[in-house]
Amino acid sequence: MTEKTTAELENLRGLIDGVDSQLLSLLRKRLDLVAQVGTVKHAAGLPIYAPAREAAMLGKRRAEAEAMGVSPQLIEDILRRLMRESYMSEKDVGFKQVNPELGHIVIIGGQGQLGRLFAQMFALSGYEVRLLDKDDWDHADELFDGAGLVLVTVPIATTCSLIRERLDHLPEHCILADLTSVKGAPLKAMLETHKGPVVGLHPMFGPDVGSLAKQVVVVCHGRAPEKYQWLMEQIGIWGARLVEADAGRHDKAMQLVQAMRHFSSFVYGLNLCREQADIDTLLEFSSPIYRLELAMVGRLFAQSGELYADIIFAQEESLTAISDFIDNYRDALELLKTGDRAGFIARFNEVSNWFGNYSQQFLTESRAMLQSVNDMRSV
Amino acid sequence: MTEKTTAELENLRGLIDGVDSQLLSLLRKRLDLVAQVGTVKHAAGLPIYAPAREAAMLGKRRAEAEAMGVSPQLIEDILRRLMRESYMSEKDVGFKQVNPELGHIVIIGGQGQLGRLFAQMFALSGYEVRLLDKDDWDHADELFDGAGLVLVTVPIATTCSLIRERLDHLPEHCILADLTSVKGAPLKAMLETHKGPVVGLHPMFGPDVGSLAKQVVVVCHGRAPEKYQWLMEQIGIWGARLVEADAGRHDKAMQLVQAMRHFSSFVYGLNLCREQADIDTLLEFSSPIYRLELAMVGRLFAQSGELYADIIFAQEESLTAISDFIDNYRDALELLKTGDRAGFIARFNEVSNWFGNYSQQFLTESRAMLQSVNDMRSV
Repeated sequence: MTEKTTAELENLRGLIDGVDSQLLSLLRKRLDLVAQVGTVKHAAGLPIYAPAREAAMLGKRRAEAEAMGVSPQLIEDILRRLMRESYMSEKDVGFKQVNPELGHIVIIGGQGQLGRLFAQMFALSGYEVRLLDKDDWDHADELFDGAGLVLVTVPIATTCSLIRERLDHLPEHCILADLTSVKGAPLKAMLETHKGPVVGLHPMFGPDVGSLAKQVVVVCHGRAPEKYQWLMEQIGIWGARLVEADAGRHDKAMQLVQAMRHFSSFVYGLNLCREQADIDTLLEFSSPIYRLELAMVGRLFAQSGELYADIIFAQEESLTAISDFIDNYRDALELLKTGDRAGFIARFNEVSNWFGNYSQQFLTESRAMLQSVNDMRSV
Repeated sequence: MTEKTTAELENLRGLIDGVDSQLLSLLRKRLDLVAQVGTVKHAAGLPIYAPAREAAMLGKRRAEAEAMGVSPQLIEDILRRLMRESYMSEKDVGFKQVNPELGHIVIIGGQGQLGRLFAQMFALSGYEVRLLDKDDWDHADELFDGAGLVLVTVPIATTCSLIRERLDHLPEHCILADLTSVKGAPLKAMLETHKGPVVGLHPMFGPDVGSLAKQVVVVCHGRAPEKYQWLMEQIGIWGARLVEADAGRHDKAMQLVQAMRHFSSFVYGLNLCREQADIDTLLEFSSPIYRLELAMVGRLFAQSGELYADIIFAQEESLTAISDFIDNYRDALELLKTGDRAGFIARFNEVSNWFGNYSQQFLTESRAMLQSVNDMRSV
């Protein structure tokens, strides 16, 4: 490098340092302003996540960016990242309490990760939360006395029997709800055991989300929805979106979405292990897309085998989808064994037609994700 | 909402508008300064991607952010996103030509997506590029005359026969290289057919990357590396990282990384299609993680069946990995059929131990990815 080049680069880098320092001040300022919006909203009991306003703001910024020769996608991505930061710190302010007259909340299985998250959210909204775990059944009646909501969040395998055996004498006005990822059987058990208001919830996210903003909670109505309307509002105030669903339709989808997918990821991991693949080598030769896919499989095994067994063994009907998979795999393998390239392409096109416009949409979506995975790369 | 609340929110939103307008100016300014760095680097022939400098800069910014009470991860994410933007616009400036004495470059299969990308990169670096496609073999000798590099990028299935049948009389000083995702057989074919310098390359990315910055190109050395040293440098100047590998080890990894994974995604898509799953419903009940997984499967089918057939049928040895998978699937399915929950958990823990620390690393990595997927959500 010549001296001139070095000097030029030094000079430009100094200017970039200056810009970045202004950038940091602006970010600080913006986060503070949004926090003030949060405080005002909190006092007025408004939800933190307002999709329409967010979309309008982003649209305006994109247009402003375009006018200045900045890529609209760049400003949108940066603002979305900033919004995440703001949602995360909503917790510091707390949330409006929709139903101050409720009485306390009992969370059964409150030591589990999801139980803890909901306990925290309720506490941040001013409710008194009491946890009931395995060892607390001796004084359960005491805990239930005066409770306005009992929330069940125990492993799927024990949910129904626990409801039937332990929750048959709750105060009648008390709401009974659960957070199980299967909805039909628990809802039935709750309705048959408890005479008061009943609702089934399925939070569609892991317990490690930093904020509930934009997350989905599936709601399967049980009995007396007007009595738990406040709970829906409360969850909305945390930023989540409520999706009402029929329990049977939800469970059918879960067989494909959860059980089938987890099972096939599990087998993929098992297969890598049995082949004694060398993970270092796999990563060395991984494009961003494969690294992402490997991460999606590997992440399973950082979690609890019990939890995945619960999910996979939860519905007997999942066995059908999981068994069908092996038949399709065998058929496709036969194409490979016989070198039937044309047959493979014919099947491929059949699936491609079935996906229709979705495949293009998925390609576009995944491209954006892969770009942000690539941004994270260091070497 | 009270009038006071409305007024307070209006006022704060006005202030945020002002901050965002300053933010846009700063982004414009920073992009311009980085473009100037690019121009200076271009003139001096320096690579656009300098990992060590990037890491140092990010470390410094993180510390500055911390001192200002801004989350270090926030500024890092924003700067990484900005760097992507800068890499993308490097193409507008062009790249240093490492070997101006080369003579022209012939790209066989230059109408393919990857061929077009490399043609573009070479052209942006000042090389004269000529494409040779199916219909051009009549005047192939003319195209080869005086060529410094012949680059083969045709479907895997035809690569070796094309090399052996068509490239046996290239000028002896000319470099022969290929971009096939399998390396052993093409390298052997090139070495046996051509007496001059030979090198096998495997770009570990799709043709739709906007920039080669941070992307990996695998290099399998063939003959006379000193003659194609400039090519390695040239690829480095485009921002890619070169990974030297033994062709056999590379191909073995590809059986698991590419063939196995694509095949199982293919069957997953086939299975959804045969089950006549309703994609709308699946998406309605999808957490961000499942949406991501569905997108990773669906994206396959937006692409060419021919291409995937090429990859999956490329190596006979892939059949072993793909067949082993069905055995492991069958074993795991047996656990499910017999309700052997304990057996499932035992297998799970076996795989978990095998993944070791990687599973935790993958969990952390995928969490960051899922957060950025969630940022993109609109409703």
